Amino acid sequence: MKAYKDMDKNELLALKEELSGAYEAVKRKGLSLNMARGKPSDEQLDLSMGLLDVVNSGMKVVAADGIDCRNYGEMDGIYEAKKLLADMVGLPPENMIVCGSSSLSIMYDTVSHAYALGVNGNTPWCKQEKVKFLCPVPGYDRHFAITESFGIEMINIPLYQDGPDMKLVKEYVETDPAVKGIWCVPKYSNPTGCTYSDEVVRAFAALKPAAPDFRIFWDNAYAIHDLYDNGGDQLLNIMDECKKAGNENLAFVFCSTSKVTFAGGGIAGIASSPENAEWFRKTLAIRTIGYDKINQLRHALHFGGIEGMKKRMAEHAAIIRPKFEAVYECFDRELAGLEIGTWTKPNGGYFISFDALEGCAKNIVAKCKEAGMVTTGAGATFPYKKDPKDQNIRIAPTFPSLQDIKTAAELFALCVKLCSVEKLLEE
Amino acid sequence: MKAYKDMDKNELLALKEELSGAYEAVKRKGLSLNMARGKPSDEQLDLSMGLLDVVNSGMKVVAADGIDCRNYGEMDGIYEAKKLLADMVGLPPENMIVCGSSSLSIMYDTVSHAYALGVNGNTPWCKQEKVKFLCPVPGYDRHFAITESFGIEMINIPLYQDGPDMKLVKEYVETDPAVKGIWCVPKYSNPTGCTYSDEVVRAFAALKPAAPDFRIFWDNAYAIHDLYDNGGDQLLNIMDECKKAGNENLAFVFCSTSKVTFAGGGIAGIASSPENAEWFRKTLAIRTIGYDKINQLRHALHFGGIEGMKKRMAEHAAIIRPKFEAVYECFDRELAGLEIGTWTKPNGGYFISFDALEGCAKNIVAKCKEAGMVTTGAGATFPYKKDPKDQNIRIAPTFPSLQDIKTAAELFALCVKLCSVEKLLEE
Repeated sequence: MKAYKDMDKNELLALKEELSGAYEAVKRKGLSLNMARGKPSDEQLDLSMGLLDVVNSGMKVVAADGIDCRNYGEMDGIYEAKKLLADMVGLPPENMIVCGSSSLSIMYDTVSHAYALGVNGNTPWCKQEKVKFLCPVPGYDRHFAITESFGIEMINIPLYQDGPDMKLVKEYVETDPAVKGIWCVPKYSNPTGCTYSDEVVRAFAALKPAAPDFRIFWDNAYAIHDLYDNGGDQLLNIMDECKKAGNENLAFVFCSTSKVTFAGGGIAGIASSPENAEWFRKTLAIRTIGYDKINQLRHALHFGGIEGMKKRMAEHAAIIRPKFEAVYECFDRELAGLEIGTWTKPNGGYFISFDALEGCAKNIVAKCKEAGMVTTGAGATFPYKKDPKDQNIRIAPTFPSLQDIKTAAELFALCVKLCSVEKLLEE
Repeated sequence: MKAYKDMDKNELLALKEELSGAYEAVKRKGLSLNMARGKPSDEQLDLSMGLLDVVNSGMKVVAADGIDCRNYGEMDGIYEAKKLLADMVGLPPENMIVCGSSSLSIMYDTVSHAYALGVNGNTPWCKQEKVKFLCPVPGYDRHFAITESFGIEMINIPLYQDGPDMKLVKEYVETDPAVKGIWCVPKYSNPTGCTYSDEVVRAFAALKPAAPDFRIFWDNAYAIHDLYDNGGDQLLNIMDECKKAGNENLAFVFCSTSKVTFAGGGIAGIASSPENAEWFRKTLAIRTIGYDKINQLRHALHFGGIEGMKKRMAEHAAIIRPKFEAVYECFDRELAGLEIGTWTKPNGGYFISFDALEGCAKNIVAKCKEAGMVTTGAGATFPYKKDPKDQNIRIAPTFPSLQDIKTAAELFALCVKLCSVEKLLEE
């Protein structure tokens, strides 16, 4: 396989003609494919249908301690739901607060409370001259949208295979009091799939922030979302490490069952130190009398505990692993050795991250779209949707059928080749 | 029956001794009663148990238009849930946005968005020097807690039998650009149970606010919560009236099924003009990918439409009406003619409002508590928990059993008498 960069102009022109012909042929098929969002497939959702029956009219709808789940109260959740989510992220249940069905909403509310009311008695961010967040890139577009909506300045931090560039993180956090937070997806990161190393987690825990209200926003969205049954990537427990480092209040941990049970109807939570949890509860008490405890009870009864949840995750893996592998197989076959792109092969999570030649991502996404395939927008994995090198594309292989994934991967690889040739011919 | 104020000192002293004896006797019973919060009773919750079975594993969990309710998306709700809530408050479904299970949370988020991000492109409230809200009193403590938490200055507005003092409202709203909102429970108001007259609703709709970002927070919590089957109080449709007055963007309307199905697991919504709804959707899109659509589907299927919901409300009324009437019967029997208190007899809603002699509310609440009965705290129905005349007490008769309500009403009346005598003896 000859690398494209080693081809001469005539070779590239001939290749372009060949690829264009192939592309036009695919276009004529009138495909309709979508690899844009990290959504579970119907087959995955079918795994949890038992959740719908486990609380029913033939029983008392009460938590283990007798609380009536149909009525007001128990603002931070019933114990068994706290325990389930706490076990998911390896934390004690006492400081887990179960809030509704969306961890994204909890992250939004955490930023919103900090912005309007201040973190733990500190000056509200809205009353401070400048507020900045560090954003490991590529990262999760919806995180960036939250901070952008509050006018918070976002700073790109390179994300490596073992986590963010901690030298840079340390420098920003320890010298600039305007830096108030950092967005992290520490395990099976969205979109690269990397898991932070022990060294990186310890470096986070050891941070000595210039701002008293700096917090790590630790979105442990894929805590138990392994693709292989070898135990998966191992992530150090951030709360334990923070405590060891005498930094107990440093991190907020977020999690949810959106990709365990139903993406539209799971349960989600936030955990932190006793002091942080107390702060969050205090603001929460103004916002609500309590979240839907019936759905919390459903989850607790359906799984019986964390082992039931892990069993479910193995069933999910059996469905989505072949989809990831179909993409790898295609990319290995079609792109290896051409030196026109690199891609991740994560052990879990929901995404594959593809880095094209610089300046090619937008064109690839556009070409895919023209042929009937939607991917996450180019740039979406960066703050302000601005990928400085225009090269990263997030691939979400879980939702379409395996057959569609295969078709989509072929089309994607073809578009990568075509756009790369066009790019090289421009130079 | 002789009015206490017409008694001389000796009469009062004799009465005090008699009442004190009765009170000590009640205390010895070791009662445990709670009339503090507007919670539905177990019997009421039992009415909706069918809600738990209507979506189950034997069916496709899809909305009428085919949307899979188990997956992400449909941020503002499935159509049939929008329609159900819209019919509840007499509005078109297009601008109803169904969000989670708590209307209180939606109100919080509306204030929060206005505070941090600004209403419809106006300067965020947090960037304005002063923000004020008008608060008809007595009112709902959780409303006041929201505005208080954002540091918004609250101004008391007298609430009469036909609604707030509109002359005062108009004066504040039309002259002071710092006045950004007003809290309203327009039907079966919490706690007085009054319903705003047509004239009052029209006066609201005709307001010409000094602030472009002034909004009416119209919490129509008891829209279909009649106690009697005579059709109930009639409330003009605020959105229609605003439109007629050329003031389409003036009001946000909130509603929920917390007191129709389950207080811990209903559905809730916000409705407004197309422009306001668009603003709310835009901020919402940052906060969530979508709320629990499975629970929306449950509600839609369980009721089949607004008529099913109204039938349920008649069943609720049959349970709680005797509780309200037991309180009236006791108060009429024990307090009428004594001129030591007045109380409301609403046609719907969840509360009775009691006005004691000035300076007596705190003492009455304390006396009740000492004898084992919790009521809503004195002052709770006013901003900053400060009842300037210390006279209003909210009574919530729905949760306890009928027998407990009867016992509680007797104890309450006794405490009113005792505190009134003590008060008159002080003078």
